[in-house]
This record gives sequence, C-alpha cells and structure tokens, in this order.
Amino acid sequence: MKEQLNKLKEKLAEISNISRSIGLLGWDQQTYMPPAAAESRGNQMATLGKFAQEMSISPELGRIIDDLKRFLPEIDPDSDEACLISVSSKDYDKATRVPVDFVVEQAKITAIAQQAWVEARQNSNFQIFLPHLQKVVDLRRRYSSFFPEVEHPYDALLDDFEPGMKTSEVKNIFNAMRPKQVELIKAISDRPQVDNSFLHQAFDEKKQWDFGVEVITKFGYDWNRGRQDKAHHPFTSSFGLDDVRITTRVDPNFFNTMLFGSMHECGHALYGLGIGRNLDYTGLDGGASLAIHESQSRMWENLVGRSLPFWEYFYPRLQEVFPSQLSNISLKHFYKGINKVQPSFIRVEADEATYNLHIMLRLELEIAMIEGTVSLKDLPAIWNNRIEEYLGVTPPNDAQGVLQDIHWSAGGLGYFSTYALGNLISVQLWEKINQDIPNLTERIRQGEFGELLGWLMSNIHRHGRKFEPQTLVEKATGSTISSAPYLRYLEKKFNQIYDI
Amino acid sequence: MKEQLNKLKEKLAEISNISRSIGLLGWDQQTYMPPAAAESRGNQMATLGKFAQEMSISPELGRIIDDLKRFLPEIDPDSDEACLISVSSKDYDKATRVPVDFVVEQAKITAIAQQAWVEARQNSNFQIFLPHLQKVVDLRRRYSSFFPEVEHPYDALLDDFEPGMKTSEVKNIFNAMRPKQVELIKAISDRPQVDNSFLHQAFDEKKQWDFGVEVITKFGYDWNRGRQDKAHHPFTSSFGLDDVRITTRVDPNFFNTMLFGSMHECGHALYGLGIGRNLDYTGLDGGASLAIHESQSRMWENLVGRSLPFWEYFYPRLQEVFPSQLSNISLKHFYKGINKVQPSFIRVEADEATYNLHIMLRLELEIAMIEGTVSLKDLPAIWNNRIEEYLGVTPPNDAQGVLQDIHWSAGGLGYFSTYALGNLISVQLWEKINQDIPNLTERIRQGEFGELLGWLMSNIHRHGRKFEPQTLVEKATGSTISSAPYLRYLEKKFNQIYDI
Repeated sequence: MKEQLNKLKEKLAEISNISRSIGLLGWDQQTYMPPAAAESRGNQMATLGKFAQEMSISPELGRIIDDLKRFLPEIDPDSDEACLISVSSKDYDKATRVPVDFVVEQAKITAIAQQAWVEARQNSNFQIFLPHLQKVVDLRRRYSSFFPEVEHPYDALLDDFEPGMKTSEVKNIFNAMRPKQVELIKAISDRPQVDNSFLHQAFDEKKQWDFGVEVITKFGYDWNRGRQDKAHHPFTSSFGLDDVRITTRVDPNFFNTMLFGSMHECGHALYGLGIGRNLDYTGLDGGASLAIHESQSRMWENLVGRSLPFWEYFYPRLQEVFPSQLSNISLKHFYKGINKVQPSFIRVEADEATYNLHIMLRLELEIAMIEGTVSLKDLPAIWNNRIEEYLGVTPPNDAQGVLQDIHWSAGGLGYFSTYALGNLISVQLWEKINQDIPNLTERIRQGEFGELLGWLMSNIHRHGRKFEPQTLVEKATGSTISSAPYLRYLEKKFNQIYDI
Repeated sequence: MKEQLNKLKEKLAEISNISRSIGLLGWDQQTYMPPAAAESRGNQMATLGKFAQEMSISPELGRIIDDLKRFLPEIDPDSDEACLISVSSKDYDKATRVPVDFVVEQAKITAIAQQAWVEARQNSNFQIFLPHLQKVVDLRRRYSSFFPEVEHPYDALLDDFEPGMKTSEVKNIFNAMRPKQVELIKAISDRPQVDNSFLHQAFDEKKQWDFGVEVITKFGYDWNRGRQDKAHHPFTSSFGLDDVRITTRVDPNFFNTMLFGSMHECGHALYGLGIGRNLDYTGLDGGASLAIHESQSRMWENLVGRSLPFWEYFYPRLQEVFPSQLSNISLKHFYKGINKVQPSFIRVEADEATYNLHIMLRLELEIAMIEGTVSLKDLPAIWNNRIEEYLGVTPPNDAQGVLQDIHWSAGGLGYFSTYALGNLISVQLWEKINQDIPNLTERIRQGEFGELLGWLMSNIHRHGRKFEPQTLVEKATGSTISSAPYLRYLEKKFNQIYDI
C-alpha cells in the first residue's frame, strides 16, 4: 500500500502545484496585473487548467486509486490514508464523468451569457438575459444528468460545493428557519430604528487599513505566511499552507466595508493556514466545503467582530484613531449602529438578520429552475413577490432584483445556499466553543483570541477536506447542521438591540 | 505547410503559456510573496518547469519540426515562418541533447554550491567554496561535451545567451578594446577628480519614485501594459506582449540607485513591449540575446540617461523636486557627478568607463576554467592581480574579490560577457540612430523620445528572437559587433568631462 500511496501523493502533488499556480495567476489578475494583460492571462490560465484537468482524469491516476481502494476495509476510515483514498476516488469519479466537450461548451456559453447579463443589468432588461439563462439552466441540467444516481437533480450541483449534502436536507433546514427569521424582521421593523449615520463619514483610508491590520493581527493572522492587498471584489487565495493571502476594499466614506471585509477574509485565511501539514499537497489541503469555509469567515466577522465584548476592547482604540468621527458616539450607540437591521434589495453587505432570506430566495428559485417547475420568463415577478414577502421591500427594477448577481450567468447554480449554511454552522460551532471555553467572552473582552483560534484549528482547520461537511460538524458539535442555534443567536442579539 | 505550422504554433503556445506562468511565480517571489512561502513556491516552479521541459523535448514536437524543415529551402529565410522553423529546430536540438539526469544533478550541485558560496563570502574564505566551484566547472564542461561540434568548449556555454556567437569573436572584440580602456582610466586617474558627494544625501523615497515614473513615462513606458514594483535585486519580467513589468530599488541616501535602475529596467521593458504581435506565443517573442537586451537597457540608462541633453531637459525639474539638495548644484556639476569614474572592486553600479573591465576579467577566467588552463586554487591571486592591472585597485579580501558574485556558484558560467557586449552594441546602434535621426540630440533636449523608441522598435524590438545577435546588429547598423564605436564614445565623453 505504501508504494501505491506514494505514487498517488506524487500525482496529487503535481496537480496541487499546478492548481496553486493557477491560483496565483488569478490573484495577480485581481490585484496587480496591468489592464491590457487580460487576454494573455486568460490564455495562461486556460493552458494550466487544461493540464490540471488532464492530470485529474488520467487513466494512470484512476488505476492507482482503484488499486488503493482494496485496502480501505483494512484501515481506520478516519485515518489520513483512508480519507485520501476515498476523497481522491470521489474526485476522480466526478471529474471523469463530465465529458471534456461539455466543459468546453459550458465555458463558451457562460462567457457569452456573462456579457449578455452585463448588458441586461445595465438596461434593467431581463429579456436580454432570458435566452442565455435558458442555455445555462440546460447546461446545469445536463451536468446533473451525468450523475443519474442522485435523489434530486439539484443534489449533483450542490455536491460540488457541499460534498454529500442533499437538497432535501438543505430544504428542511431552511424551512425550519425561514418563518422565524421573517417574523423577527417584522418585529424589528415595528421598533424604533437604530442610527448608523456616523458610519457614513469620511474615514482616512490609510488609518482604516492600519486599524484593520491591527485587528486581524490580534486574531492571529500570520504575516509571515500571508499578506493583504486591495482588490475590487475582495477574496482569499491559498497557494499553499504557508501562503494564504487576503484582499480587501476600502471605502473612504463608509467604515464597514474595509473592517468587516478584512475580518471576513481573515476568517477564510485562518482556515487555510490551519490545515494540517500532513495533508499538504494531497488535495485534501483545502476547506471541507464552501459552507464550512463561510462558517469561519462569518464567525470572525460577525460572532467576534460584531459582538459587544469585541468592541469593549477595540472601541477605545478606534476612537483614538478616528476622534473627530467617533468621540461623541458611545460604545452602545456604535455597537447598535454596526448591527442595524435594514432590509434591502441587494444581498451584498446585508445585515445578519436579513442575509439568509436573500439566500433562501435564490435557493428556491435555483431548485425550481433545475427541476423545471418554473418558467424562466416568470422569474422577475416571482423574485419581486418573494422579496416583498420575506423582507417587506420591492425592487424598483430588475437590475436591483433578479438581475443583481453575476453568478447565474457564469453557470454558478448550486452554491448560494452555502452562504446561509455557513451562518448556521458558525453559530452551531460557537455554542460548542463557548461550552469548551467557558470564559471565551471574557477573553474577547481582553482582545485575546488564541484559545478560540486553537479550538478552530483542532476541531475544524486541521482536518482540511478529510470529512464531508455534515460529518465534520457532527464531529465538532455532536449534531449535524441545524438552524436552531442560529435562530437562538439572532433572537437574543436583536431582541436586545431592538428592545423587543 | 500551413497545417504543420499551426500544429507547431499550438505546441509552442502551450510552452509559452507555461513559461510565462513560471515567470509570474518568479516575479511574485521577488516582490510580494510572504517569506515563509519559499519552499512551496519552489515546488510550484519545479512542477511547471518539469512540464515545460517535457514539452520542449517531446518527440511529437520533434516530428513536427522535422516535417517543417523540408520547406525551408522554398521560403524566404528572413520570413517569420522560416525563422520560426529554424529557431525552434535549434531550440529543440539543444534541449534534447542535454539528458534529464544531468539537469537534475546540476540543480542539486548548484543548490549546495550556492550555500557554500554564501558561507565562503561571509568568511571571506575561498577554500570553503573551492571544492564546489570545481564541481560546477566539471558540470559546465560536461554540458559543453553534449555539443562536441563546437570550435571551443566555451562556445557551447556562450550560445545559450548569445546564439551563434563564438568565443573567438568575443575575445577578438575584447582584446581590441581592453588596452584602450585601461589607458583611458589611467588618464582619468591623473586628472583632478570629480565631485559627486551631492548624490549621497537624503532623498525622499516617494519623490524619487515619482520622478523616476515621470522619466520612464516620457521614455514611452506604457503603464497599461506594465507596472513598477520594489524588489531587492531589480529585474524585468515579461508575461506576454501586454505585460512587461519592471522592479526597482530605492536607496533613501543615494540618488542613483533608483533613477538609473529604473531607466535601465525600462530599457529592457520597452524591448519586451516592442516585440511584433506576429511573434506572440511562438517562443520568438523574447529578446534576441542577453547582449541585445542589455544594449537596450544600457542605451536608456547611459546614452540617454547619463547624457547632457537629457539633463538639460530634466535637471530643472529635478531641482524643483529636490530643491534643498540640488539648488546649489549647477547642471554641469550634476552631469559630471553622475558620470564620475571611480575604479572599484565591485562590478555592480560601476561607471561606464570601468564597467567593461570587470566583465573582461571574468570572461578571461571563465574561459580558462572551461579550458582547464587555470588551477582553480589560484583564482583569488589571479583575480587580484588582474583587477590591479586593469583598474589600479586591489581587493582587501576575497569577499570583495573573486567571491563577490553569486553567479558561478549557481552554474552561471557563460553569460558575463553579454554585459560588456551590450554596452558595445548600444553605442554601435546609437551611432546609426544619430545618422538616421539627425536631430536626435535636440529631441532629447526637448524631452522627446518617440522617434528614438520608434527606431528601436523598427530595427530591433519587433524582430524578437528571429535573428541571431550578430545578424541583427548587422541588419541594423551595417556591420557586426565592434568595440570601435564604444571606444569613440568613451573617449569623447570622458576626455570632455575630465578635460584630458
């Protein structure tokens, strides 16, 4: 087994090195690349992508994996070796089921669809996008057909982001949550509203940057193994266990964008930096799923960064940095302001109480599209009705409604739910962490995050992709993903803030 | 032919995309990469390097090239097609002659040799380095043995940097130059020395940077297709015809480092940006040779940037930027200061009059090492004697003598002469350019460089690697590489500055 395992690791290491190189090409594209280089960069990424793809479906890799699978019954299923064999086997199976022609066709169709979406959104005209959306949906249904064994056609799409998760599970979780979240928002809207106008002032960019650096350094971000750069759409990239970089955006007239964005990306980066060395170069050296990844970013952004204890420590410091803007704003006023609930048309930068509802709406529509139970031409109306039902607001046009996100045009049907699941998981972990570290609140109040990070590393980070998300959450908390902790958290927090 | 040519271009484009990706990995390594990522970056570069190498020696590529070679007699030898076939054929032949085992062994030996060199230099102890240098020399001699047809064993090494150049040609060129250059330096040393103390003051880094940007923007550097970043050892990288980036170093207490460094790298970058679109992705989309490349960087740095007309335009502006440092320094004083001749032990940042002598010394020693006509243990003494003979100075220790450069430890025997050849070519072109653009001096005095850049693009840049350096120089100037123009230039310039 040893020998075959080494062969497997050798192949996976090559794929890993190519993928990480593609990652750097992408990072550079969004940070420092000169504008005119877009086309040549696309060609570089296409060539490397082609090699990575060829390697990941090579018959030799398949033979090595098949050879190794016969050892599975003999070894501990939680061991690195067993997980490596199982996960590689699943990856290989999925990669080989999708014909190369399909991948090429999809790339072409989505490239055109994205252009059409840009035009459609500019003109707020869904008709321009409709025929392209139809093609994208057809593609995704064809993709699903490569996995005929799934219970629901959407399962095949979901599995790419949340390995092992079923559409029915996600529906159940969301159905249990939605009514209560809608109820909470209605209750909030009946209360006197919170003032957050002080966040919308001029804040020196350099000072914002430095304060953000101060915060994430305290979180434990290791600058020897990472860095922060500016990007228009912030993201986190990992090019190895010693090179996980974040990007951020600074709005000189709104304080939240940079700071909460930095904390969010830092949460992703801490995950990437905490993965076990034993998994390096194996392909298991990434996050378990998008939802687990999002649970980490959301935890640092919201459960830590939007909490009162955090600001008890950091607010005096922030007032020092921005005296003219904040010296007359009390801690309590500030805390309420950064947690203001404000139903909006757009998901991006939505508050904790409304965010999930945006996601649920999209998931419902995606499932219906894949099932074929909705006529695409009716989407704008359905979208607007449902936003009204969930959030009490109606988009003035389709640009701010059904056309707001680029994702569908890029073929990205299947992963929206991961954002909401991430929120749920973050709180589910948070309850367990507070049991395991009883004085966590006190530690945060003192600006100490080492124990928290240690817990996350031990229970989540180090495992990489060894376990599927449900298994990982169960190992860490004792139960599979549930909305109950999140609802408890939301109600407690916002009942207090809005005095409900 | 068309079909086979397309197949060739397809293969070459893939190699090009991988090479450019490796280039970006290297650029990032020296600009933004977090320190701890060195090992993982090394692995990424090794994997991509392995693929590029495998592709460049693939039997299929060989068959396509062989197929195409039969068309050569029928087509214009200066056409893109003919050059593509010939150059690809030579590249392929060279790549396939060197066994993979040898490449691996060389990588190992030079990695250890570089460590030994660091230790040896720190302790200024040549004995520590000696056994490793012996291994490196053996390696380079073995490399040469893969090309038994060469006239001189050093030819095989030289050819990697100056395609088609012979050791005997370089020797002849240098032999004609050396005595006169030595004589000039002696004459200068007998004259009253020039003051350049004003260059060694505090110069605000940001202002230095901005002034440098102003200058190279005037040169015609296209920021839409390039950028400038800081790096410890400045270099220029091309990742495509629309992405050629420079790096620079800023010394807050010495004005020359940043400005002349920026102009130098910009010269390299203008070359990369001027290569014909018709050659993109073919492997001919690079510089013709290191010497031709150096002729471009040296031209902008020295023939333009250290000239009086240039400063007639830029000096008032520079005085505006640094009034406290320069308002009492006259243009003439400044011009003499930046052209001060000062024999030194170290090649880096040597002035125009002494630079080539450093190079000639190294070339003589390298040829002797490859011939086996020198005993390596005698190198320190020979080095010191010869530096004394050429420059009139004696290094106080081996760290500042024979151990000063990392290149030999890294296996870099064969390319030092390109630096001096680049100087010669720059002036040879310069004489021709002044014939073709009679009012060039006046244009420079007005801060206008468009015609100069246009000439270089037409006569040098656009050809990429189509022609060997001697052919290219002959096409551009009417004669092959010669030292006469350079000597004329040096004598005229320094006789005037030193009133000889």
